[in-house]
Amino acid sequence: MTPTITAFKASPDRGRGLARDMRVRWALEEVGQPYHVRLVTFAEMKAPAHRKLQPFGQIPTYEEDGLALFETGAILLRIAERHAGLLPADPRARARAIAWMFAALNTVEPPILERAYAVLFESDKPWHVERLPVLDSRVDARLADLSHHLGGADWLDGAFSAGDLMMASVLRRLGSSNLLERHANLQAYVARAEARPAYARAFADQLAVFNASQTA
Amino acid sequence: MTPTITAFKASPDRGRGLARDMRVRWALEEVGQPYHVRLVTFAEMKAPAHRKLQPFGQIPTYEEDGLALFETGAILLRIAERHAGLLPADPRARARAIAWMFAALNTVEPPILERAYAVLFESDKPWHVERLPVLDSRVDARLADLSHHLGGADWLDGAFSAGDLMMASVLRRLGSSNLLERHANLQAYVARAEARPAYARAFADQLAVFNASQTA
Repeated sequence: MTPTITAFKASPDRGRGLARDMRVRWALEEVGQPYHVRLVTFAEMKAPAHRKLQPFGQIPTYEEDGLALFETGAILLRIAERHAGLLPADPRARARAIAWMFAALNTVEPPILERAYAVLFESDKPWHVERLPVLDSRVDARLADLSHHLGGADWLDGAFSAGDLMMASVLRRLGSSNLLERHANLQAYVARAEARPAYARAFADQLAVFNASQTA
Repeated sequence: MTPTITAFKASPDRGRGLARDMRVRWALEEVGQPYHVRLVTFAEMKAPAHRKLQPFGQIPTYEEDGLALFETGAILLRIAERHAGLLPADPRARARAIAWMFAALNTVEPPILERAYAVLFESDKPWHVERLPVLDSRVDARLADLSHHLGGADWLDGAFSAGDLMMASVLRRLGSSNLLERHANLQAYVARAEARPAYARAFADQLAVFNASQTA
């Protein structure tokens, strides 16, 4: 049965692929699973019908064969468990790949989002100039550890996995900051992820949705 | 084989059970799995030997039978997959319980930790009094959604699961703030979690470690 995901009708990132449906699209492309997309406006996302699928009023959601899921981590895990290509077969390597999914979401992403939040909502505040270096250093501490772990390897633990998909997606949120530039191996890591054909297909699909919203 | 976890030799929370080893201890108590604890000082936690197990220099880690894991989410999932008691047998209910684990770690915990960070490190800053209500409102938005979802139920999705263990652990970090008091059903939810015998055993064990560190 073809799964259905939800995505922004007009993503606030203007098609840069930073909204979280991109992570699910990319995973589905990696495993070769076609999917439907139901587009929602911001108002629809916050309405009761959508909140029955997503209690926090966010996208994406995932519906398949009587199962409704939310949280990109849980959706990726579900996809990875039912298709080959996103988790190693060896149980120990599989557990480690899942650890990297959680590391991306609970250790690396929070300081990155906090910095993005400050830039978006507090850059006109008198304290922003003093706080930004602190926010930068909190991000950089995580990046330095990640860079040290990655070293000269292509991926975080052996072959490309759902852990890499999630980590690269999180690092992409550093976008226009120069924080990634301090770590050449992490820059190359993100570029390597973005060069995957599955990534390119997913990116093009989410961009087409945004472009359509601008001409409608 | 008995697993070994790491924990703070002297937890900065002074035995309140907010350090993340508590989540792993609680999970192991829920499934009746004995475990060893290796205590680490802050300096040891940041040293290369520990970083081989935990690239970000944090606790807890989990070692078992040739597998070394980090990230509490991944550790809990590993424990839940190998023992009965933390995830439903039905595959769809299991996927939903895992979604709640991710929701706790990636949707509810980040604004709670951000507020705790500001109280800990920025309360002497001139801007703190203006920022705190914003931080509170970001936490409260998540709590309101969570409270709405929980309604009059005991647990987030059917029987108690690893999702509830993680969510209750995250909510406990609101500690001395009054934010939980606005949502009576969430207060009762945390109290219900804390009343579980497995929680009480885990809490007593981590408290004994802290107390020993003070008299040593």
